[in-house]
Amino acid sequence: MAYVHNFSAGPCVLPQAVFEEASQALLNFDNLGLSIIEISHRSPSFVAVMEEARSLVKELLEVPDGYTVLFLQGGASMGFLTVAYNMIRNQKKAAYVNTGAWAKKAAKEFSFVGELDIIASSEDKNYSYIPKNIVAGSDYDFLHITSNNTISGTQYKDFPTSDTPLVCDMSSDIFSRKINVADFDIIYAGAQKNMGPAGTAVYIVKESILGNSSIPIPTMLDLNTHYSKDSMFNTPPVFAIYASMLNLRWLKKNGGVGHIQNVNEKKATLLYNEIDNNPLFEGTTAIEDRSTMNATFLLKEAALTDTFNKMWQEANISGIKGHRSVGGYRASMYNALPIESVMELVNVMKELTEKHG
Amino acid sequence: MAYVHNFSAGPCVLPQAVFEEASQALLNFDNLGLSIIEISHRSPSFVAVMEEARSLVKELLEVPDGYTVLFLQGGASMGFLTVAYNMIRNQKKAAYVNTGAWAKKAAKEFSFVGELDIIASSEDKNYSYIPKNIVAGSDYDFLHITSNNTISGTQYKDFPTSDTPLVCDMSSDIFSRKINVADFDIIYAGAQKNMGPAGTAVYIVKESILGNSSIPIPTMLDLNTHYSKDSMFNTPPVFAIYASMLNLRWLKKNGGVGHIQNVNEKKATLLYNEIDNNPLFEGTTAIEDRSTMNATFLLKEAALTDTFNKMWQEANISGIKGHRSVGGYRASMYNALPIESVMELVNVMKELTEKHG
Repeated sequence: MAYVHNFSAGPCVLPQAVFEEASQALLNFDNLGLSIIEISHRSPSFVAVMEEARSLVKELLEVPDGYTVLFLQGGASMGFLTVAYNMIRNQKKAAYVNTGAWAKKAAKEFSFVGELDIIASSEDKNYSYIPKNIVAGSDYDFLHITSNNTISGTQYKDFPTSDTPLVCDMSSDIFSRKINVADFDIIYAGAQKNMGPAGTAVYIVKESILGNSSIPIPTMLDLNTHYSKDSMFNTPPVFAIYASMLNLRWLKKNGGVGHIQNVNEKKATLLYNEIDNNPLFEGTTAIEDRSTMNATFLLKEAALTDTFNKMWQEANISGIKGHRSVGGYRASMYNALPIESVMELVNVMKELTEKHG
Repeated sequence: MAYVHNFSAGPCVLPQAVFEEASQALLNFDNLGLSIIEISHRSPSFVAVMEEARSLVKELLEVPDGYTVLFLQGGASMGFLTVAYNMIRNQKKAAYVNTGAWAKKAAKEFSFVGELDIIASSEDKNYSYIPKNIVAGSDYDFLHITSNNTISGTQYKDFPTSDTPLVCDMSSDIFSRKINVADFDIIYAGAQKNMGPAGTAVYIVKESILGNSSIPIPTMLDLNTHYSKDSMFNTPPVFAIYASMLNLRWLKKNGGVGHIQNVNEKKATLLYNEIDNNPLFEGTTAIEDRSTMNATFLLKEAALTDTFNKMWQEANISGIKGHRSVGGYRASMYNALPIESVMELVNVMKELTEKHG
């Protein structure tokens, strides 16, 4: 079968080696004669998977001492509520930055526990940029940001710095670039971009924040519940964690986060250069805030839409339709997307211009 | 490799056909040239999976009109909080029956939103029976029960009937026997017994209860959020739902719930007869409340423990160690466990008695 260039925004492409090993493990995992999905989550074989997954996160992101790693359920959407409950303090007030639909949803959940202020927003320009010079004063319990905005294609290049604890939804760019974990009190991320398949979310949590909420926390939303049970308070999403572990192993084997960051920058440069230099296309975001993960762009001549769509489909390119709120195209270039796929897209864009430009 | 008789309490045995088809789908799903875990959850191929899974639940359990089926995350543990939020009404008071560790955990979550009464309990005899003649008066918003108690091995044979709305955690026996869905306002269940792999939970919800809570509900805990988006409000746990769908297809193909109920009763009778007739063993629960899913039993002569453990391990039997709170043994006989596995266990029990009884 022809290789499909999978530019999906998430769930998204993962390494072929992950599909192959997971496929085998569904038939016979760890030479037990049992499938990965029929063994007890308390069995030594799965406990080893969970511990390897947690320790790979620590190693790949150089997580400092005093932080714990948890694999939970509910995606980042449940994370919005979880971080609100776990970070609320005596001021019962939090600062959120609104850089898009997901940031807005995150902010909404804080309203169930306290008072929120949107201290910066790019809603005025359809979220096409990242607000600069963000400062959250000490009258806030914490500041919440969204590192990469999948829909609009923007990404923080620097994170706000202040004494106010920083909480970050890193769903769509975690493991894509080096970060300084010590800058954050909680980093959380749905798995289904660079970590693994849909069905789990990773939390990197400063241990000293646990148990300090100013309101009672329901059991499953309390990060301390999961921390105290090594991320096994209740049955974890076994397969999603296993496949994430395989993917993190792949990342380590292939040079780790520093190396993949270089590759990601190369892929993004290749595509953005074409967007900027090809007279038929234009980007939709502020150049300095462009995401290396999700490139959003428009075809300037609407009359060529059908032609272009046919061309990239014939080239086995998949998943580049833009989100309805931005329109046009969105090419998601997560870690496992080969640079050859970006080259193929660029070739199709060039070909369109040669034939119809 | 020798066949392993998998008596795990959950995650547990699923049909071999499910492992095989899921294994293939990880390499090439729906002939797309893509893995099931790299496609968009909004793609027609996955939307079809979600819709087939929801409609198989309706068909297999004869769910009447006016009920919806949702596949969410967080297991039954998140369900404890979810049902509390969605079923609390003006009395802000709920009745819970305490039949074991999971029932107790369910009750605890209601305390975050309202006042709870444990109106019946079997804690006095280590949860070895199901309280009878349970009546929750009209001063309660709802009555909560746990249909099957995995740890202690007890199961409701009849459900309480009253005008008070009934909510049931059916995690460990859903799809194992016929039920009358119309008796319940919400049935919820973690997948990892008879539905599929760990990582999703099914909710069968009377639509008329939606939107009637007396307190504000955080977005992800509001069943209405998921109902209004056809169970796709946020990225669902794609693989767990896919494998559940395959398993429900298998159940339908193999005679449905009525047929599997007969098989389950045969398997349980076979094992309980041996427990009762073999002088070396004894059951731990009231005979009339015995679970068809989880049989708990003790070896009367402690001196034979090592011998027995060695014998069943040599027979490729796995997962029958009892929960620490009950001790002894627990044989879980979920839908996909072949009757031959039960026969093998019974043979080992007989052999122990012949040689050492």
